[in-house]
Amino acid sequence: MMYPGPVLRLMEELTKLPGVGPKTAQRLAFHLLKQETESIQQFAQALLAAKDRIRHCSICQNLTEDDPCRLCVSSERDQDIICVVEEPKDVVALERSSEYRGLYHVLHGAWSPMDGVGLETLRVKELLGRIKAGGVKEVIVATNADVEGEATAMYLARLLKPLGVAVTRLAHGLPMGSELDYAADDTIARALQGRHEI
Amino acid sequence: MMYPGPVLRLMEELTKLPGVGPKTAQRLAFHLLKQETESIQQFAQALLAAKDRIRHCSICQNLTEDDPCRLCVSSERDQDIICVVEEPKDVVALERSSEYRGLYHVLHGAWSPMDGVGLETLRVKELLGRIKAGGVKEVIVATNADVEGEATAMYLARLLKPLGVAVTRLAHGLPMGSELDYAADDTIARALQGRHEI
Repeated sequence: MMYPGPVLRLMEELTKLPGVGPKTAQRLAFHLLKQETESIQQFAQALLAAKDRIRHCSICQNLTEDDPCRLCVSSERDQDIICVVEEPKDVVALERSSEYRGLYHVLHGAWSPMDGVGLETLRVKELLGRIKAGGVKEVIVATNADVEGEATAMYLARLLKPLGVAVTRLAHGLPMGSELDYAADDTIARALQGRHEI
Repeated sequence: MMYPGPVLRLMEELTKLPGVGPKTAQRLAFHLLKQETESIQQFAQALLAAKDRIRHCSICQNLTEDDPCRLCVSSERDQDIICVVEEPKDVVALERSSEYRGLYHVLHGAWSPMDGVGLETLRVKELLGRIKAGGVKEVIVATNADVEGEATAMYLARLLKPLGVAVTRLAHGLPMGSELDYAADDTIARALQGRHEI
């Protein structure tokens, strides 16, 4: 005996989620079946509403309900500096630091030919458009400190510098509160390269 | 800046799933937002359909689309033996072994006062009704081999034996293909207690 059709189909859908195998799908399906009908309807509605109402901001490409997004239309943000990130979650991380008051640009990925992510799939054209429109003095490339992020940063630097904007990169070094002993070799190397007088 | 409302609500719903924390919910939400609208609609429909069309069989309490379920109405199953399990997935596990040809009864849990699962929340009354209706010779108690499963088995044995049915328990011992050296102490103890002549 197998599970009834609708249970199997639910498990099948759950298995499509990243990191969810057949066992987890089974556990999630039984959990969901035990919930009230109202909870399940709320979940389904949240799924549909997110997909239906969320789009990419036509300026910064971040996720938004309103286009342009709140950040792009805010008068409190510095208009002459753009911070380029890989994903929307990176915008949230940077905002959490309360250190940055400029604009953003979300690439939606990093250059990764091995994973089939070519430069043409990233939102680079839109970034170029913003810079060519004028008024931007600096582009901070805040892509991740991994191979893909570094390659993307190098590419962007080569592309943007001829346009007369300063292209900067976030500093790499020891995380605050960390112990030297536990730091990875390449982190220490970067921290040494970036050392500064105190 | 936080995420747009619909994204936050989706993350909130995902966080309600067992084993899903804020970071996983964020990852799942972004994965879902990247899917085609059609895929999301399929997912939402699978959720609603499972909740809407799946009920408990009025006889064995297993999950089913049709009531009574296929197993309960099958003429190929022995009608005089009932195997009692904790969850629907246990029925699937037992069916996989192709060893059992009787009926089932799903308790939907095991006696666990610590987790707020009292005996009254289990489908024991329905099991009693089936046995009192007559025709049942043996009840195999196939609850898990943990504290809750054992306690449930003891309780059921005390309840059912006076009704004149044989109450049996699955054998406990060394799993097939296992090495003695790696077996847990209580498994070895059970295997010794259950030893038989060869």
